[in-house]
Amino acid sequence: MNYSAKEIASFLHGTIEGNPDVVVNKVSKIEEAEEGSISFLSNPAYTPYIYKTNASIVLVNNDFNPEDGLKTTIIKVDNAYNSLARLLELYQKSKPEKKGISSLAFVSASVKTGENTYVGEFAYIGENCTIGKNVMIHSHCYIADNVTIGDNCILNSGVKIYSHSEIGNSCIIHSGAIIGADGFGFSPQTDNHYKKIAQIGNVILHDNVEVGANTTIDRATLGSTVIKKGVKLDNLIQIAHNVQIGENTVIAAQSGIAGSSKVGDNCMIGGQVGISGHLCIGNNVKIAAQSGIGSNIADNEVIMGSPAFDLVKYRKAYVHFRNFEKLIKRIEELENKIKSLSKE
Amino acid sequence: MNYSAKEIASFLHGTIEGNPDVVVNKVSKIEEAEEGSISFLSNPAYTPYIYKTNASIVLVNNDFNPEDGLKTTIIKVDNAYNSLARLLELYQKSKPEKKGISSLAFVSASVKTGENTYVGEFAYIGENCTIGKNVMIHSHCYIADNVTIGDNCILNSGVKIYSHSEIGNSCIIHSGAIIGADGFGFSPQTDNHYKKIAQIGNVILHDNVEVGANTTIDRATLGSTVIKKGVKLDNLIQIAHNVQIGENTVIAAQSGIAGSSKVGDNCMIGGQVGISGHLCIGNNVKIAAQSGIGSNIADNEVIMGSPAFDLVKYRKAYVHFRNFEKLIKRIEELENKIKSLSKE
Amino acid sequence: MNYSAKEIASFLHGTIEGNPDVVVNKVSKIEEAEEGSISFLSNPAYTPYIYKTNASIVLVNNDFNPEDGLKTTIIKVDNAYNSLARLLELYQKSKPEKKGISSLAFVSASVKTGENTYVGEFAYIGENCTIGKNVMIHSHCYIADNVTIGDNCILNSGVKIYSHSEIGNSCIIHSGAIIGADGFGFSPQTDNHYKKIAQIGNVILHDNVEVGANTTIDRATLGSTVIKKGVKLDNLIQIAHNVQIGENTVIAAQSGIAGSSKVGDNCMIGGQVGISGHLCIGNNVKIAAQSGIGSNIADNEVIMGSPAFDLVKYRKAYVHFRNFEKLIKRIEELENKIKSLSKE
Repeated sequence: MNYSAKEIASFLHGTIEGNPDVVVNKVSKIEEAEEGSISFLSNPAYTPYIYKTNASIVLVNNDFNPEDGLKTTIIKVDNAYNSLARLLELYQKSKPEKKGISSLAFVSASVKTGENTYVGEFAYIGENCTIGKNVMIHSHCYIADNVTIGDNCILNSGVKIYSHSEIGNSCIIHSGAIIGADGFGFSPQTDNHYKKIAQIGNVILHDNVEVGANTTIDRATLGSTVIKKGVKLDNLIQIAHNVQIGENTVIAAQSGIAGSSKVGDNCMIGGQVGISGHLCIGNNVKIAAQSGIGSNIADNEVIMGSPAFDLVKYRKAYVHFRNFEKLIKRIEELENKIKSLSKE
Repeated sequence: MNYSAKEIASFLHGTIEGNPDVVVNKVSKIEEAEEGSISFLSNPAYTPYIYKTNASIVLVNNDFNPEDGLKTTIIKVDNAYNSLARLLELYQKSKPEKKGISSLAFVSASVKTGENTYVGEFAYIGENCTIGKNVMIHSHCYIADNVTIGDNCILNSGVKIYSHSEIGNSCIIHSGAIIGADGFGFSPQTDNHYKKIAQIGNVILHDNVEVGANTTIDRATLGSTVIKKGVKLDNLIQIAHNVQIGENTVIAAQSGIAGSSKVGDNCMIGGQVGISGHLCIGNNVKIAAQSGIGSNIADNEVIMGSPAFDLVKYRKAYVHFRNFEKLIKRIEELENKIKSLSKE
Repeated sequence: MNYSAKEIASFLHGTIEGNPDVVVNKVSKIEEAEEGSISFLSNPAYTPYIYKTNASIVLVNNDFNPEDGLKTTIIKVDNAYNSLARLLELYQKSKPEKKGISSLAFVSASVKTGENTYVGEFAYIGENCTIGKNVMIHSHCYIADNVTIGDNCILNSGVKIYSHSEIGNSCIIHSGAIIGADGFGFSPQTDNHYKKIAQIGNVILHDNVEVGANTTIDRATLGSTVIKKGVKLDNLIQIAHNVQIGENTVIAAQSGIAGSSKVGDNCMIGGQVGISGHLCIGNNVKIAAQSGIGSNIADNEVIMGSPAFDLVKYRKAYVHFRNFEKLIKRIEELENKIKSLSKE
């Protein structure tokens, strides 16, 4: 489909500088764009590209003023990145969607599905499940007995949801994510073997949660593992039993949160972070990648290290660690000087 | 189902203090319990809750003596946590179980299955497999040719088991776990490309092994990757080719063990630990989360760090690391004093 | 099948020392081999085993000269490890292979498949896909619309490939790997919630790429996430959106590369390494396990630590860290001496 600069500017409430009739049919990165593409400039590091890009249109922030001639047409908007997001969404929605319940799916007789819900080939839906409207359940999904799923959710191919899980509205779950597997709970016995503690709780995902590919969220021993509204989990993350994650917290790939820990709202957690069990992490906490958290963290802390502490302090300490060799030399020198002073 | 305190005390060989006729129908956490719930008190940190819980019954250890009035009925047992585990197990077993071999499963003609075995929809069982009795193979499992599975195993939805794997009795494997994929073995060639080494060994799981969701256990190049009796593996763990893990060792989520390493019996390995290849880890070793192991570890060591060494020593060293800034000031002060002393 | 030393030596262009007529029918590790096995000696640490092995034949490097009597027959070759690889490959190829398109698979009418391609039970292939010849697509694979797959690829059971992905020739993808899930891209909004950025790019795998079990490779926001020729990825690795990985780079298990970073050719990246976003890693870079990379890395660097720096320097600094307690004592001693010197 082709769109003119005029049509796009009108959709985004932007203003055109250049040719309002130029037409585009794809979205590209500014450094790779060919003629017929629309691109965007948001990160100032990419500003040099706008003077040589082949994109036919570039979205820019209102405060962008070219310092040189442009061959591209620009559309000025409040926030180029948000505008791009809206265009990409439009593009995504223009694609045809799968419809209906495949005759090759297995849907138990007791399942209730809302209108306009898709169930792909080889998907399995167990007994007493309730599925909302406009839900996409792709091939090879497994939805065990007594699961509820809200409206407008997307379950990509191969998602596995154990029994009694509750999924809110507008959640997106990526392939290979496992929701509701048993928590890791064992009782040590006198002969060194471990007896399994049955995990009879469940997992609850509130609205607008996104769960990345191959991420695992374990069911609670008792009660619920809870992922609150707007949480975004990247790929290969481990959420243990009875964990709670607060609203709009985002966690990067390969991080893990051990049993019963509570993470606050609006936190940003980097990749490969580990959080021990039974801890409280406050609101608005930022944790650098690969950090290890072994104690409670107050609101608004910004931390790093394993075990983690204040990020600025960590970075300073690490500079000294890097220069340890020089430090040792300074100490040796001191020792030598003392020795010669003592002899005097 | 409803149970009275009298019935539960009789089942657990416990003694009642309070109302023997009070009735419960669910199991809850002590801090969240409502009337009609049974709960437990094992971790002393939770003792304050017993004086205000709404649980109708609480399991406590025999040595618990209330320091204040209780509105709940208590049942005293040898070990409240173990007793809870027994109750949860009973609760779990009371649920109806899936039965039979689905007509939507694919089971090769040469497969031998024991009595009372369940095979779910869209499960695939290859040629010459032997499956024990009372085995639950949920939907979307893949069991390649020449696999043997013992009695009383549970394979949750979407488990993938490559050819020639051997699974013992009473193993539980969670969704997305991959047993027997190729080890990561390549032979570097003079032009920088790598030639694949065919991985013709297999994976052996002994009895009572539990494997977490999305954990991967690679087949051996030659011989076997072996997971011994009673080993418990959490989610998203990597076990490389030719690794051996000793009896009753437990490993927390996202840890990885590189090729040919041997881990002893009764070890406890924290989350996100990495163990290099071709190492020997002794028996009863404890490894703190996020540690990295680059050399052999003797029996009974307790270690931390990357590379890891004695945990107590690590913690002390880390305190100094945190205070590096102060240390540098002490050294500067020494340097200044020396300078002024030298001038005298 | 039985092979004689003479036949094997002829296949490998090797020379026999011992009995040319001895016959073997399996491949084993030198320390575990029984009579009738062929084994190999490549790592010098295993040399002592050759004098006591029960293997009937052992492959050795041309420069191996026994210092003691051997009861086994040896075959001398240029490179014993490469020769083993060739034998294992032969062994692997001698196994019967699955053929044809299962009637229990779902293959869209518009799919084009090359000759001799296998599609297993419950596999799903979406619209407009192009699949090459001699491709093995095992059970439960999901291949979304508009995917292209080259010749001679193996997709193990349960691989999920999202739409518009492009897979080259001779790629091997292990179970549970997810190719093309959405990148982790969100635009923060003023009320703290995050708006999803539609991810409309794709993933491209060049020829001879191997992807380990449960590894995830996200699609690009715009453009492509690119894995170049000969790259080998172990299990449980995370490759974020818009990452590029250069030719013949190998990455060990559980490492993660954040968005838009570029890794050069011929790099060796250890397990559990994290690489931040928007970085450039040069060619021939070696990164020790568990390292964290927060800045660009030049060609040929060998680095360690989190954040990582020169490996040799890191190891020296870490020795001082381990001995921090002693260092503190040296400083205390200096302080005491200064004090007494000052008093004099």
